[in-house]
Amino acid sequence: MGMIGGGLTSFIGPVHRKAIGIDGQIELVCGAFSNDPTESKETGKSLFLNHKRVYESYHEMFEIEKKMEPHQRIDFVSIVTPNHVHYEPAKLALESGFHVVLEKPIAYSLAEAKLLQKLVEKTGLILALTHTYTGYPMVKEARQLVKSGRLGKVRKVFVEYPQGWLSTRVEKTGNNQASWRTDPKRSGLGGAIGDIGTHAANLAEYITDSPIAEVCTMLNSVVPGRQLDDDSSMLLKFDNGATGVLLATQVAAGEENNLNIRIYFEKGGLEWHQEDPGTLVLKWLDKPKEILRAGWNYLSDDAKKFIRTPAGHPEGYLEAFANIYRAFANAMNEYKPGKKMNAKKYDFPDVYDGVRGMAFVESVVRSASSNKKWVKIKA
Amino acid sequence: MGMIGGGLTSFIGPVHRKAIGIDGQIELVCGAFSNDPTESKETGKSLFLNHKRVYESYHEMFEIEKKMEPHQRIDFVSIVTPNHVHYEPAKLALESGFHVVLEKPIAYSLAEAKLLQKLVEKTGLILALTHTYTGYPMVKEARQLVKSGRLGKVRKVFVEYPQGWLSTRVEKTGNNQASWRTDPKRSGLGGAIGDIGTHAANLAEYITDSPIAEVCTMLNSVVPGRQLDDDSSMLLKFDNGATGVLLATQVAAGEENNLNIRIYFEKGGLEWHQEDPGTLVLKWLDKPKEILRAGWNYLSDDAKKFIRTPAGHPEGYLEAFANIYRAFANAMNEYKPGKKMNAKKYDFPDVYDGVRGMAFVESVVRSASSNKKWVKIKA
Amino acid sequence: MGMIGGGLTSFIGPVHRKAIGIDGQIELVCGAFSNDPTESKETGKSLFLNHKRVYESYHEMFEIEKKMEPHQRIDFVSIVTPNHVHYEPAKLALESGFHVVLEKPIAYSLAEAKLLQKLVEKTGLILALTHTYTGYPMVKEARQLVKSGRLGKVRKVFVEYPQGWLSTRVEKTGNNQASWRTDPKRSGLGGAIGDIGTHAANLAEYITDSPIAEVCTMLNSVVPGRQLDDDSSMLLKFDNGATGVLLATQVAAGEENNLNIRIYFEKGGLEWHQEDPGTLVLKWLDKPKEILRAGWNYLSDDAKKFIRTPAGHPEGYLEAFANIYRAFANAMNEYKPGKKMNAKKYDFPDVYDGVRGMAFVESVVRSASSNKKWVKIKA
Amino acid sequence: MGMIGGGLTSFIGPVHRKAIGIDGQIELVCGAFSNDPTESKETGKSLFLNHKRVYESYHEMFEIEKKMEPHQRIDFVSIVTPNHVHYEPAKLALESGFHVVLEKPIAYSLAEAKLLQKLVEKTGLILALTHTYTGYPMVKEARQLVKSGRLGKVRKVFVEYPQGWLSTRVEKTGNNQASWRTDPKRSGLGGAIGDIGTHAANLAEYITDSPIAEVCTMLNSVVPGRQLDDDSSMLLKFDNGATGVLLATQVAAGEENNLNIRIYFEKGGLEWHQEDPGTLVLKWLDKPKEILRAGWNYLSDDAKKFIRTPAGHPEGYLEAFANIYRAFANAMNEYKPGKKMNAKKYDFPDVYDGVRGMAFVESVVRSASSNKKWVKIKA
Repeated sequence: MGMIGGGLTSFIGPVHRKAIGIDGQIELVCGAFSNDPTESKETGKSLFLNHKRVYESYHEMFEIEKKMEPHQRIDFVSIVTPNHVHYEPAKLALESGFHVVLEKPIAYSLAEAKLLQKLVEKTGLILALTHTYTGYPMVKEARQLVKSGRLGKVRKVFVEYPQGWLSTRVEKTGNNQASWRTDPKRSGLGGAIGDIGTHAANLAEYITDSPIAEVCTMLNSVVPGRQLDDDSSMLLKFDNGATGVLLATQVAAGEENNLNIRIYFEKGGLEWHQEDPGTLVLKWLDKPKEILRAGWNYLSDDAKKFIRTPAGHPEGYLEAFANIYRAFANAMNEYKPGKKMNAKKYDFPDVYDGVRGMAFVESVVRSASSNKKWVKIKA
Repeated sequence: MGMIGGGLTSFIGPVHRKAIGIDGQIELVCGAFSNDPTESKETGKSLFLNHKRVYESYHEMFEIEKKMEPHQRIDFVSIVTPNHVHYEPAKLALESGFHVVLEKPIAYSLAEAKLLQKLVEKTGLILALTHTYTGYPMVKEARQLVKSGRLGKVRKVFVEYPQGWLSTRVEKTGNNQASWRTDPKRSGLGGAIGDIGTHAANLAEYITDSPIAEVCTMLNSVVPGRQLDDDSSMLLKFDNGATGVLLATQVAAGEENNLNIRIYFEKGGLEWHQEDPGTLVLKWLDKPKEILRAGWNYLSDDAKKFIRTPAGHPEGYLEAFANIYRAFANAMNEYKPGKKMNAKKYDFPDVYDGVRGMAFVESVVRSASSNKKWVKIKA
Repeated sequence: MGMIGGGLTSFIGPVHRKAIGIDGQIELVCGAFSNDPTESKETGKSLFLNHKRVYESYHEMFEIEKKMEPHQRIDFVSIVTPNHVHYEPAKLALESGFHVVLEKPIAYSLAEAKLLQKLVEKTGLILALTHTYTGYPMVKEARQLVKSGRLGKVRKVFVEYPQGWLSTRVEKTGNNQASWRTDPKRSGLGGAIGDIGTHAANLAEYITDSPIAEVCTMLNSVVPGRQLDDDSSMLLKFDNGATGVLLATQVAAGEENNLNIRIYFEKGGLEWHQEDPGTLVLKWLDKPKEILRAGWNYLSDDAKKFIRTPAGHPEGYLEAFANIYRAFANAMNEYKPGKKMNAKKYDFPDVYDGVRGMAFVESVVRSASSNKKWVKIKA
Repeated sequence: MGMIGGGLTSFIGPVHRKAIGIDGQIELVCGAFSNDPTESKETGKSLFLNHKRVYESYHEMFEIEKKMEPHQRIDFVSIVTPNHVHYEPAKLALESGFHVVLEKPIAYSLAEAKLLQKLVEKTGLILALTHTYTGYPMVKEARQLVKSGRLGKVRKVFVEYPQGWLSTRVEKTGNNQASWRTDPKRSGLGGAIGDIGTHAANLAEYITDSPIAEVCTMLNSVVPGRQLDDDSSMLLKFDNGATGVLLATQVAAGEENNLNIRIYFEKGGLEWHQEDPGTLVLKWLDKPKEILRAGWNYLSDDAKKFIRTPAGHPEGYLEAFANIYRAFANAMNEYKPGKKMNAKKYDFPDVYDGVRGMAFVESVVRSASSNKKWVKIKA
């Protein structure tokens, strides 16, 4: 594989690399790690890469790699740049015949996302989106439980993603992560809603297997001077008749990365917290609460195949990330040109999730500025 | 004191009586426990009351008690009937010269609540409303912390009250509690929103010391056949510029009585859960989370004066209830006819909280049926 | 009832009075609250007692009360004095024909305890010992679960009681509670082991229904200058072949009152924490952990009959205390002179538990000073 | 690096490999993965290794590798075989000039461990022992806190390691892990005490920086037919005057891998649980409990340098494992023949920890069969 972005100051680039390292199925062999050629080179060196395959730009990378012998050239690229540099390299990768792993949100705008969808459909290549949190085994167990029907029909979804790191104006203190995320030119229409709200929406839709149909939104820029939203809350209506609430805020001072979801059904409820990812709580109308834990034999195969350690040996964020790569690698192993790819079979987020995410962001922003209560999500 | 309602099948009547028993300051000496005279008598007997002071109706009770010698007659009545039987007895009590403790919501309608307010203002008598949850010491600590300014200005309030007991149509199975609560003739305009939403709103306003100004509401009757809402969620705007979300649902299958609140400020956040009431979590932007616990010397006097046991000896719901009676009794001890009563000094919910609660219910119901996003709360 | 001890500076006296108040079955009508007659009088006054029944000594109390008319005189006394003043008033109460509630440990020494046992057997009167923690409903549920056999045979017991309040030499700072508990003349042979170790041992034996047979003990006086143990740990062998560990320390700085127990069986385990008393955790070899909670319908009748509030409305320490009085009151209601009393039927700790507790203390102290590994508990 | 053991059915081999993959500093290039040459080959193939460097035995591996060019041959080997096959390959590795990473316990017996110590001292090569749990950042934070003196002197240590997986006789059901661990010929003198008791002891000594001096032990073989202990508990005396309790059991039905430690000091206490490894609880005599969490800026550098993700992005067991390799790799990077290696500087467990572990096991076993209360730990 090759990597685009992920230079020395990147947060998410090293996360991808560490995640990839866990299972030993995928090897990073080349990259264009920065738009600064010097930083790209230094990054490549620190990763013990062959200096010939550390490129000055992704254009150069595709140019050269696509001409290499099949057994030598990369199979895919991981794109880990800020949002405004997702579309172009992804497009070029697909056009050059490479599969793609993309950081979320898939693109800067819904329009770009749709173009990528078309390109994926045209080329038949595989595109995975790193909605990390659905990579957790107990999230997969939750989805399987809903599917099984044991809990009855879904009625109510509460999904939250409170973070505290943007509680002050850190984008003015040299914090690179904060800087591009709060900049509409690099981030897109959404601030918190794009950065983490999409994760929350994706998690809710993944577990319930039902799309959010309408939203009624309040977006705030709580920290003075900030241009994009740093705080969002909304009421939800799902396609299947369930309703819900979604919160995604980056000014919840003191919170870390507290993505969590509670869903209520006819016969019980389930609850999952990203900060304690190996635990899934099941509640029942008439019997004791159950605590399901990663690593036990009673779990479904859907969850078990993404677990590496015995019960009580905690897995975390990197392992969830690795699970997306594992599913993506499984899909690549069975890839045949011309054959239609079904991402659900391998269980990784794909281009359609990416398009939904962008439609969500744009609808939420539209809802926030409307006096009308409900706004439909349109792709 | 005397009691109106609270017969043998009542849930909340015995709660009042047990709460009163804890501190030994107040003695139940008479009552009209049911509109069925036989049930009233049996209740009185089971409570070892003098049978002469077990009345057939509250009219009879007031008639006789007000003619008794001052040192013999009751000081106040507790009214623990369903919502539609709050106003009449409360009115009669005040007109007969007795202080009043009322179950929440204060009345069947906002109009009734306002009449009670006028009557309280006219008579100068004391009316306490049993918003139990603000009786918990750690809730008082939270309020004091907000006041102290240590956390900075409030930004975001998430308050939730999920219960599961109405997940099926229990009102059709002889459940007396469910029966009147889901009946608009006895409960009023609000179902879940009146029964528990008012608690959530009261808790948020009490801790932040700021009224909710506007709501954007979704109300649902999730269980087929139910007339009133059993599920509510809403976006909030507070007077002081903060925003928030309030959830109150009785179809959260598997939940018990999970009232909880998280508030975020400029410098940190706080979190309290009714099911673990002796714990208050403080979060900070730049230092470790702190766990404040009932019974420690570091707490404020506002909290300490409502704690009975050393740290680690849990107090619960009955003790929170007893705290409202304790504060009310303190107020009565200093009561002088003609002197204006300041409930805040003694720290118990009063008639103004009651009027706010009814205004909240009516505004929420109005908001729920409106296509406009925001509705102002008007009293 | 009457009370001996429990004056204005007492900790446990008010706890008894509040606990009694909850259920309204028992009325405090007289007392000898202090060996200082002035304090006794003031205490009686603060409790609104008839001044004629506030006595200068317990001798006077028994003298006068036993001559009163049956419907007027007390049924029983609660003795809430320090350990060295348990035996004499209990003896006098029984000899005067009154039932007795005694704070634990039952007496200053095993010899005294055995004399009380003989007196109870001779008079046929009821003696209850306030081992509060077995009053919690979820402890009763645990005992019932063990009895049911669902978990298989017991294998391992870990019971702990860490407190932190004696981490410094508070007995030298005017702390009355610390002062007598660290004084061998008033406390007896045991410090922490008598004060809280007996609770831990009683809890383990109550739930498993099996006596501790042998101990191997380390006792420490951690805080310099202290005469009695403030820290203890020991290995346990039970009669039924199970083994275990017991810790009871009062120098666990930062701990509140963290009594907790974990028991492992052939097929699973159970866990209970006094600071979260409404929760009982069940673990299984091959299925998800279950969280049993007070107030649910799935509990056994043994637990349900000691629960006052619906699920999610926490009960605590005072309610656990009240449960002992409730069971004792039930026993008194069915008391007939000459009929043998079976405390187990009503489910309260009795004189035999008291004797076992003193035997435990004396054996533990003997073990601590022995070089031999194991010491048998002998009554 | 090369690996000895860790074939297709191994539990710990893949753990080592995944851990190594995370940081990308170390590359597995050869191995003798099994004493069955076919399994060794298949393992190598599944790992994409050059088939020429997949050896039939470790003897062959050392023979060939030591003759390779310095820039080609391995720097070190990881030995992940059962206990009885630790000493021989480690000895051969050191004698062949390779550094060594060894699974714990370091050897089959104390005698073997001492021989390895001599060899390390003689060759000057680096030997790291994978006591995984001290690789967790919050354990390092705990150690640093103790060193800082903020908590005062240590008084009491409670360390526990309950597991449930040996609650039935799984060694008779084809479970390879259980089979050798319960077999004295392959495991050594200790069952649970060697497998997990050594982890608990190591954790306690690491955090407190004080060796355990004496033990008073009870060892049990709870499951009928088992030869080695599956359950242990003991009282502890530390060199520095503190005392404690250690439990390590594999028949705690329903437990996963619940290693945890609580330590009490003059001014407070600390608490850490392996199953929630990113959290460290600090308790204080007179102020609120603090919850320290991985990823925050307030942590010490000792902890921070072993953290890979921002707060709220959980790291787990594999990352703790990777931390030992990271520290070991740091040491190797600065290795100079003839220069004395100080493992403490790099913060990884070394041969001296290994010798202590074996001394612990042998002393514990001696104590268990003695009637004398206390037995000194002798190396």
